[in-house]
Amino acid sequence: MRPRNLLENLPAPGPDEAFETLFEGRGARVERIVSHGHASPPGFWYDQTGDEWVMLVQGSAELEFDDGRHESLVQGDWLVIPAGCRHRVAATGPDTVWLAVHTMDA
Amino acid sequence: MRPRNLLENLPAPGPDEAFETLFEGRGARVERIVSHGHASPPGFWYDQTGDEWVMLVQGSAELEFDDGRHESLVQGDWLVIPAGCRHRVAATGPDTVWLAVHTMDA
Repeated sequence: MRPRNLLENLPAPGPDEAFETLFEGRGARVERIVSHGHASPPGFWYDQTGDEWVMLVQGSAELEFDDGRHESLVQGDWLVIPAGCRHRVAATGPDTVWLAVHTMDA
Repeated sequence: MRPRNLLENLPAPGPDEAFETLFEGRGARVERIVSHGHASPPGFWYDQTGDEWVMLVQGSAELEFDDGRHESLVQGDWLVIPAGCRHRVAATGPDTVWLAVHTMDA
């Protein structure tokens, strides 16, 4: 395949974050997420059945975990969100691009 | 876990590219590769048993495929290298950072 660019063709701001699967293999799915000031709805928690490796590629963001911990992320920051670790997007800046790798269910 | 940053603590230039596994799950392994002007040895080809999703996060690079195709990559470019697709790193610039997701064997 020819290369594509993660930072090009960003969708315009809309009511929701924009999710795009870039690659899906036997063991993992690679996803681009574009946020423009979005946050998860109050009281909403992601609670996933597989581990997620996620990096902030561009922009700014704050994650919240259900133990009360908040993490502010800058460009290049990455972390692992284990299966079952409840979390939400507390805030994002404009033109924010995430890269997420979702692995198989545990 | 607390966030780490992909672009910090880059190893100094050495004789070889620097490979670091950031996360290894049931279905995939996420790896950072730092290159400082490195290239694969002449005649050497990577020939992997699983699919690889790879992105150039910083710097510049050129990949070569055994069908003669060359691809120049700039920041944010990504592509999928399927299992069995022979390839090599033809050239890299200084302070070049790759992100690779290796999925399970096909």
